[in-house]
Amino acid sequence: MLSIREARPGDAPLIVQFIRDLAAYEREPQAAVVTEQDILRDGFSGDRKFWVLFAEWNGEPVGFAFYFFNYSTWLGRPGLYLEDLFVRPSARGKGIGKALLARLAQIAIDKNCYGMRWQVLDWNQPAIDFYDSLGGKMLKEWITVRLMGEPLKELAALGIEH
Amino acid sequence: MLSIREARPGDAPLIVQFIRDLAAYEREPQAAVVTEQDILRDGFSGDRKFWVLFAEWNGEPVGFAFYFFNYSTWLGRPGLYLEDLFVRPSARGKGIGKALLARLAQIAIDKNCYGMRWQVLDWNQPAIDFYDSLGGKMLKEWITVRLMGEPLKELAALGIEH
Repeated sequence: MLSIREARPGDAPLIVQFIRDLAAYEREPQAAVVTEQDILRDGFSGDRKFWVLFAEWNGEPVGFAFYFFNYSTWLGRPGLYLEDLFVRPSARGKGIGKALLARLAQIAIDKNCYGMRWQVLDWNQPAIDFYDSLGGKMLKEWITVRLMGEPLKELAALGIEH
Repeated sequence: MLSIREARPGDAPLIVQFIRDLAAYEREPQAAVVTEQDILRDGFSGDRKFWVLFAEWNGEPVGFAFYFFNYSTWLGRPGLYLEDLFVRPSARGKGIGKALLARLAQIAIDKNCYGMRWQVLDWNQPAIDFYDSLGGKMLKEWITVRLMGEPLKELAALGIEH
């Protein structure tokens, strides 16, 4: 029996575990350095920076969706941005990922969002086919740019003096 | 003389104009249906969904940066997400875009962000070269997926009954 619920502060260790499991699946197991303290600080106190849903099968957590809100300047409405979606390998094939996405779609509608947005790795064809089957549009003309570390500091140091 | 300041509610008409100008540059002039009311509601009242910086040249607004915050589950820190960056054609070549990016980099550092993130169209080689020169990394393996309209409603309607 499948159920979906919002995460609670006591779920922080499991959220970290799911994030690590997903990073390993995405072939970057060392990249997930997030801690329980990070999750509690940014997701469960003060100005929340993200939200988490858990999927449970017979009362046991088997998957999660980690999301926040972006904004479409063209449409003048927020959007639901899905950062992570993960279902334990042992629980796949039961429609759990789809059920999490369905709940997110309902949240997006309830929050006046224009829609949902997320990213998929270009080698993950099963996921691409799944998202395509739901009516998702692949925006292949957009390249994501990331700036961090030393280049970020150097850019900040420029100020307006140049 | 260049200066950068935070946008005020009275700037809503100009924010809409800059969004439309950028949409036209991105070859989608009809896509920007945002209104001043949208900007005032979501950017200048209650729970803010975005922030805007203006660049002024001799006191006249010539460009803007429209941003909000995302979250890195791997790093356990927020990120600054740059949705729109635009400089009027007549004001280009003065380092205004770079100055806006430099201010954003400082904001990202001040807010404990892991870095900045944005997207660029794959045909916009001058922009790609510019971002590359700043040390930006092109994450070409990530495809953005968008779900909206009827497929969003159909997905929401599935609930967990399937």
